[in-house]
Amino acid sequence: MRVKSVACATLTSNPLPPKEGEEVRKNMKALHWDGHNLRLKASYPSPELTRDQALVRVHFAGICSTDLQILKGYMGFRGVPGHEFVGEVVEGVPAFAGKRVVGEINFACGDCEFCKHDLGRHCPKRQVMGILGADGCFAEVVAVPVRNLHVVTENVSDEEAVFTEPLAAAFEILEQVEIDFTREVLVFGDGKLGLLCAQVLALTGARVTLIGRHPSKLGLVKKLGIRTVLLSDWRPQLADIVVEATGSTSGLEMALSAVRPRGTLVLKSTVAEEHKLSLAPLVINEINVVGSRCGLFPPALDALAQKKISVTPMIEKVYPLSEGLGAVAHAARPGTRKILLRP
Amino acid sequence: MRVKSVACATLTSNPLPPKEGEEVRKNMKALHWDGHNLRLKASYPSPELTRDQALVRVHFAGICSTDLQILKGYMGFRGVPGHEFVGEVVEGVPAFAGKRVVGEINFACGDCEFCKHDLGRHCPKRQVMGILGADGCFAEVVAVPVRNLHVVTENVSDEEAVFTEPLAAAFEILEQVEIDFTREVLVFGDGKLGLLCAQVLALTGARVTLIGRHPSKLGLVKKLGIRTVLLSDWRPQLADIVVEATGSTSGLEMALSAVRPRGTLVLKSTVAEEHKLSLAPLVINEINVVGSRCGLFPPALDALAQKKISVTPMIEKVYPLSEGLGAVAHAARPGTRKILLRP
Repeated sequence: MRVKSVACATLTSNPLPPKEGEEVRKNMKALHWDGHNLRLKASYPSPELTRDQALVRVHFAGICSTDLQILKGYMGFRGVPGHEFVGEVVEGVPAFAGKRVVGEINFACGDCEFCKHDLGRHCPKRQVMGILGADGCFAEVVAVPVRNLHVVTENVSDEEAVFTEPLAAAFEILEQVEIDFTREVLVFGDGKLGLLCAQVLALTGARVTLIGRHPSKLGLVKKLGIRTVLLSDWRPQLADIVVEATGSTSGLEMALSAVRPRGTLVLKSTVAEEHKLSLAPLVINEINVVGSRCGLFPPALDALAQKKISVTPMIEKVYPLSEGLGAVAHAARPGTRKILLRP
Repeated sequence: MRVKSVACATLTSNPLPPKEGEEVRKNMKALHWDGHNLRLKASYPSPELTRDQALVRVHFAGICSTDLQILKGYMGFRGVPGHEFVGEVVEGVPAFAGKRVVGEINFACGDCEFCKHDLGRHCPKRQVMGILGADGCFAEVVAVPVRNLHVVTENVSDEEAVFTEPLAAAFEILEQVEIDFTREVLVFGDGKLGLLCAQVLALTGARVTLIGRHPSKLGLVKKLGIRTVLLSDWRPQLADIVVEATGSTSGLEMALSAVRPRGTLVLKSTVAEEHKLSLAPLVINEINVVGSRCGLFPPALDALAQKKISVTPMIEKVYPLSEGLGAVAHAARPGTRKILLRP
């Protein structure tokens, strides 16, 4: 049976597929980006499920910098933005019915060489939730392929679980770069991703320093025992591994200048704008630049379950979805911590 | 004893240090860059040797793209340019007397952490021959630290040995990136370095394609069994490893677009000018960018001795040092192969 769509108002905590011929509401509340304006739609078509998808009622959605880039034209996306969520399966896959879940954001084909090597996040045919060809989670419900779902264990709260996606992106660095206790690591940028990267990298035993502009944000990881330095107090030094998480051109230049010869620069920011920089220092110092994006969810969920990473102090404010436009405006203010939407 | 200096005219094939008080000529013919003009000096002070240096009479010097960059202001160098040479030890170190040698161009301290790990080419205190703080080889004689010298075996001609430095730079890629027969490799740029990189990478068994603008240059490696494609005929494809050896901004963009997700882009060009590019594709596709510069000489000398690499067809013309200005002008013409100077 191909489930067409279902409205959140009809959903229960123990749902069943609608019966053949049963009347269902097909609309929901959602934020919608048409390429020019972000609007709150009171009656947006709720997703049509394919056979391999589940419908997830969103408990919390997080607004991240990529969303703000999307609203500046990044990726030419049109539709419902949002890709950080925790929710509950309400339709489409009985085995998951009522489960609390998070979901990986790359909807891959499952058949190509990348997919066969656990790299569906690079599948050339992929859609990306709220970023490329698939509606996202700034809505009451969102459709997610079942293979992308991960059940959230009881000891992880919704407020923690909504950080799984960005936390997985931080863990991705460990998939790509060998880091251990012998390494000196600098993380530039005390934004949400920088705070997560610093914590994840510190798990390796490496000597991690987070450099940022905001004492209050730096304080969040300082109290966890991670060294922090205000950018204005930072004296240039060279490190084995430098993570660029500022999302700014000046941040990139500073990060590049802090990598020791034969060291590694990890780029975590996807910035639409062009950088103007000389690559000569990169060649002269034989620096390794590693682009780093989405990660697998299990290490992130595991770290949350084991309380190895502190995320909830990063939450600045929770908005109802009906105040989504204000929430996005708040998230766009410089220095803002995590803004959540509660549909 | 501190040997002060010696003129090439006094040199013999079986030299001895000048005796205390012996009168020596202190001048030589050299090309000199003052930051504005390159001039042929008929009477330039020949090098003052330190205890750990040898004086080498230059047999051949090669003009490379970095030299041309130097003459546009790169590195702010002043002095005698040139860093590719083969010659004969005529002074300073009896054990090397009369030996035919090539020399690594980074003059390192020998004591720092980099030097202790065979990475003197990244020594923070280093001078670089003809590039940074040390006169180079566009002269009758050049001073080189003994630890930088490598004796050239009899079955390697001077015309081959003068390619040791750029060939070592091509071998450097194999020190940095794991490449084997399973890999698809694209080399962009059929300049001198591109031709060498294509040959070196093909030694691994990888499927190498060289992409360039000049049928005559592509022909040099095509006849060795390496696949070549004229840039105008190239249809975009994705490869595991892409080497950028064009030295141009457009070449960099094309190379970046040809790297498969999670693949590697090797940057071999040191270009003084700034590139303007968006790094978003690098992050989205999690590309690994590896800056690659100088290499160790033994693998290059070994490959030349075993006739694994063909270099002499790359020579376009040999000029006497006295015609050095014309030689440099010739080398700067687009599409020129290797220009050599014979002092």
